[in-house]
Amino acid sequence: MKFCSTCGQPVVQRVPPGDNRERFVCEGCGTIHYQNPKIVTGCLPIYEDRVLLCKRAIQPRSGLWTLPAGFLEIGETTVEGAIRETREEACAEVSVHGLYTVFNLPHISQIYMFFRADLVDASFSAGLESAEVRLFDESQIPWDELAFPVIRDTLKHYFSDRSTGDFPVRVGDIRFKDR
Amino acid sequence: MKFCSTCGQPVVQRVPPGDNRERFVCEGCGTIHYQNPKIVTGCLPIYEDRVLLCKRAIQPRSGLWTLPAGFLEIGETTVEGAIRETREEACAEVSVHGLYTVFNLPHISQIYMFFRADLVDASFSAGLESAEVRLFDESQIPWDELAFPVIRDTLKHYFSDRSTGDFPVRVGDIRFKDR
Repeated sequence: MKFCSTCGQPVVQRVPPGDNRERFVCEGCGTIHYQNPKIVTGCLPIYEDRVLLCKRAIQPRSGLWTLPAGFLEIGETTVEGAIRETREEACAEVSVHGLYTVFNLPHISQIYMFFRADLVDASFSAGLESAEVRLFDESQIPWDELAFPVIRDTLKHYFSDRSTGDFPVRVGDIRFKDR
Repeated sequence: MKFCSTCGQPVVQRVPPGDNRERFVCEGCGTIHYQNPKIVTGCLPIYEDRVLLCKRAIQPRSGLWTLPAGFLEIGETTVEGAIRETREEACAEVSVHGLYTVFNLPHISQIYMFFRADLVDASFSAGLESAEVRLFDESQIPWDELAFPVIRDTLKHYFSDRSTGDFPVRVGDIRFKDR
């Protein structure tokens, strides 16, 4: 951030009165521009015991497999965002069971949330950001070709919890240095 | 948003190629400025079966009671933010059990997350944004003087779940028109 989005003057970085960390501050109009982490929301879509994965057609991690997910939009609930992303990336409709995993990625200021969901039917296809969409048995999961650690951890939790039939919300931190 | 934070030129609102909703776009340097919901993170701090609440000293809802919470900062995990806010608003140290409630507030594009926590000792006091900090028995909770619906719902869940000793993650939507 170099310029004030309210008045167009250059901004400076300093600690505002009463605050304890540096912000981008406009010395022209006085606006303090806070920056905050973003939420990525998505689904773990299941159909007859198989998991739907999308092969990414865009960077980063183009060509690797992921669960349908993306940035939460203004005015959306996290479930609504997860359903929308599944529609956009996999052209699939889902029925959501509930929140399943929450991952903090503090090094990139992102919070991931995945919802367990059932595909309403076997209809799906590659959306604009996907090269291919496919259902995978547990034995077929391409563990070495998954796009992100959050995908691997969500799938690991799922296959482990599936043996008990109990799916509590799983919370974890994923830091760049760990992987 | 009126000006590009990258180059200072005026922005326009339009749907970028390949997108499906309006964004603030700079026709000078081409930057697309995405806007996203924010996370508010906080604690439900318990000490000897009593809940710690803070009387707000700032707007909005000055004079009403709240749980310590605030906007998640860049580079933080949600637990780290909840601990920091508890320190800032109640001068209290907590030991966190885990994520407890998640509320979507789509009308203001906020996602609230509260963590169950124990105060490590009976030491607490009003931070800069609080007029008073106090422990409340269930029978003493000022239900008509709570600052936000998320506070009421989190406390209701807590007292209900406490009778069973089981505290699953509770997820809900709170929309302005509902209250």
